[in-house]
Amino acid sequence: MLSYCVRNVLSRQQCILKTSPCTITLALQSCRRPCSSSPGEHLDQVGSLLQLCVDRYYVSPGQTNTELFQRGMSCSYGPLGMELRRNLLEQWWHSVTQSTDQVFGINTLSSSKDTETDGQRPLRMVESDHLKHILEQQEVSREQLIQKVQALIQRSPSLRTSFLQGALEQFVPSFELVNRKLPFGLAESGLCFQPSDGSGCPAEVTQTSLVWFCSPRTSSQWLDHWARQRLKWWRTFALSPSDFSSRDVPAEELEEAASRGVRIIYSFPWGQETLETLWSRGHTELLHTHKGVRSKLQWRDGRKSVPHVVSVTGNMDRGVMAFLSNSLQQLKREDRKQKLLRRKVLKLHPVLAPVKVALDIGRGATVELRQVCEGLQQEFMEAKIPVWPGYLETLPTSMEQLNAKYDEMGVLFTVVIGENTLESGLLQVRSRDTTIRETKHVSEIKNFLCRYISAADNV
Amino acid sequence: MLSYCVRNVLSRQQCILKTSPCTITLALQSCRRPCSSSPGEHLDQVGSLLQLCVDRYYVSPGQTNTELFQRGMSCSYGPLGMELRRNLLEQWWHSVTQSTDQVFGINTLSSSKDTETDGQRPLRMVESDHLKHILEQQEVSREQLIQKVQALIQRSPSLRTSFLQGALEQFVPSFELVNRKLPFGLAESGLCFQPSDGSGCPAEVTQTSLVWFCSPRTSSQWLDHWARQRLKWWRTFALSPSDFSSRDVPAEELEEAASRGVRIIYSFPWGQETLETLWSRGHTELLHTHKGVRSKLQWRDGRKSVPHVVSVTGNMDRGVMAFLSNSLQQLKREDRKQKLLRRKVLKLHPVLAPVKVALDIGRGATVELRQVCEGLQQEFMEAKIPVWPGYLETLPTSMEQLNAKYDEMGVLFTVVIGENTLESGLLQVRSRDTTIRETKHVSEIKNFLCRYISAADNV
Repeated sequence: MLSYCVRNVLSRQQCILKTSPCTITLALQSCRRPCSSSPGEHLDQVGSLLQLCVDRYYVSPGQTNTELFQRGMSCSYGPLGMELRRNLLEQWWHSVTQSTDQVFGINTLSSSKDTETDGQRPLRMVESDHLKHILEQQEVSREQLIQKVQALIQRSPSLRTSFLQGALEQFVPSFELVNRKLPFGLAESGLCFQPSDGSGCPAEVTQTSLVWFCSPRTSSQWLDHWARQRLKWWRTFALSPSDFSSRDVPAEELEEAASRGVRIIYSFPWGQETLETLWSRGHTELLHTHKGVRSKLQWRDGRKSVPHVVSVTGNMDRGVMAFLSNSLQQLKREDRKQKLLRRKVLKLHPVLAPVKVALDIGRGATVELRQVCEGLQQEFMEAKIPVWPGYLETLPTSMEQLNAKYDEMGVLFTVVIGENTLESGLLQVRSRDTTIRETKHVSEIKNFLCRYISAADNV
Repeated sequence: MLSYCVRNVLSRQQCILKTSPCTITLALQSCRRPCSSSPGEHLDQVGSLLQLCVDRYYVSPGQTNTELFQRGMSCSYGPLGMELRRNLLEQWWHSVTQSTDQVFGINTLSSSKDTETDGQRPLRMVESDHLKHILEQQEVSREQLIQKVQALIQRSPSLRTSFLQGALEQFVPSFELVNRKLPFGLAESGLCFQPSDGSGCPAEVTQTSLVWFCSPRTSSQWLDHWARQRLKWWRTFALSPSDFSSRDVPAEELEEAASRGVRIIYSFPWGQETLETLWSRGHTELLHTHKGVRSKLQWRDGRKSVPHVVSVTGNMDRGVMAFLSNSLQQLKREDRKQKLLRRKVLKLHPVLAPVKVALDIGRGATVELRQVCEGLQQEFMEAKIPVWPGYLETLPTSMEQLNAKYDEMGVLFTVVIGENTLESGLLQVRSRDTTIRETKHVSEIKNFLCRYISAADNV
């Protein structure tokens, strides 16, 4: 059983480099690589991806919502999209904090009242009642009115556009924690807010942030280290890793404080977009945040110099879309009557797939079969295997329709309980990636799934 | 080994009901129960708790920040506080979504431009540049100015104060997902924003939300079901479960839409505070959100009636403080010279404790001992056991000081690698809860920790 599962994982790895044998039999032509298709086909691909995301509970319906999603902004996610983003954030968290590099997680506020650093923050959290109250005052002159509104804005908290400022502020207590030794990092993930970019409305983004403090001498090496590490991370979960790439930021696009920058890029059907940006930022912002008090910032072996900062900022909403886009395989094949069949499979990495197993019933005594399903569901849930209770569905569906639906949802395995299960304890397990059906005993299915998932997790 | 670990867990369970034998030897007097101490002592307790939270990296330093923390608002958390809240949210998520009740996770936006439902939302996300631009226009009259500012506020997105509205909006697509069958729920957690409560500034809170849709006939039973389930959940992780209680909301405090309400309450040293609120809300808000279109809302066996809503809303920032307060044991004992010693232990539940194990070195060849530590750290991290690399600390500290520090951090086990380890592979493991030191072989320590944690997880 273990060898089967490892084999499966390995064949998945092979898929990444070349089409594996089991895919060849099905995939006469794969049309997902942008380079091999026309612009019309790209539009078609994008539309088809977005439709699938809505139909299969990744993204909530609605034109505005899918537009946000496509622009790489946070949107209303359905249950599967929500779980996919959760898994992605979880993996990011582990990759950043569970490395031998010393990284601590922190949590800073999304709003701040610090007037020193607020100058650049474009969004304010204003209490509309207070503003209304000012505007309704009859006796105030035009000038007084302007002054009052300005004062209100001034004392309204500003909303963060990134985690950088929060991490710079937390530098001092964290520095004490590591006994003033370098290097170390502060990690955070969550919501950031962006001012309107011409589309007319401010938006929110799920960002990840690693702010790395190191000696000035090593900052450029650390930038390269993290750029390599991040690119490797993105590619770990990719079906087609070459769609992820990294490149240096050209000199004319450098941020004010930065001396060098690297972008991690994903090639969407409509063009390239930035998933993550790394900057080597020097020490100017850190000094400014701590009002130039160098004594607070000097590390033990540092001979009075101030640490340099490398920032690594990711957009995980765009990350969700990148992996959905990357893992969607549209396969065409001819059936026996030479009719062209299309099969869409969301081949999300086992670790990212929101649903690992679907539980369904075949023909037979419904009440008893449902009881078996309930028992299995309980067993899976206790082992923390996300399960889709397909057996609760009472509308009649053919096995073929069901498989098509689960493939589009990216469900790793479908377990079917039939009359046979009641007699012999045997059930059918279908794999999303190989489409092969296997017979297993009901007692071994949980361990099989656990081993498959943990083998994939250790890749 | 397993029996040892199970025994440990069991003795922990006993601690909850009565002082366990191993605690008795140390704890001559425990002074953490509010009922047995004077008001002055309460103040002392609170001050001592807050100081410990700051000193031990749970909460970032600063008067404003600790005040936010004490008021049950989101604040800047240090690495340990951040991890504790993460663990708490993770446990909440599992308890809500991994039950046999059908609950789906969703993600909605924290800001909304829906003018229909915005009326009540008191906070707006305003672009300060746009407002400045309006205020700087010289040629505009006072009235025009007011109109322009009002229009800007009108089109600025409003920030959510709870997850309820988002869940009501997501009802229709989720309803299709379950084939219009009841009951089911939508779960979400994250940041919500609160208008100023007199203290002068809007704040943010980490909320959890379960919005449960059921038939009108069963809504009161479901309210009771969830109230029981939630109280049980809070108590699972408590050292002193009786500090958590639930009570019905008195008629005069009912929310407008609600017919009944239950509060889950924690008794802090300074008084009782609400951790979670459950409301039976009827169908008014659901109907209003969907503009009264009943056809969209009717379930399959429902004879044209509209589902009722039960909402369960928790404040996880206050939850973090409740568990910190609940798990802090201040023990006094006399040493051999009858000197009074105080020992503070943060007896956080093994599942919640942010650091499971600390790795330290005793006397011996430092370079070699550090290598053993690095190897063990790697092993722990691969097994996803959060580890504190105490061996990196180069300032000399006595073992007693170290234990006191780790007890205050709530670290479950301290592993000490000494010269002996290099010779025989044996190391010392000290338990936070029993203070007992045991000798174990380096090869069995990871499995020991894994079993201990997973046994605690299955409670």
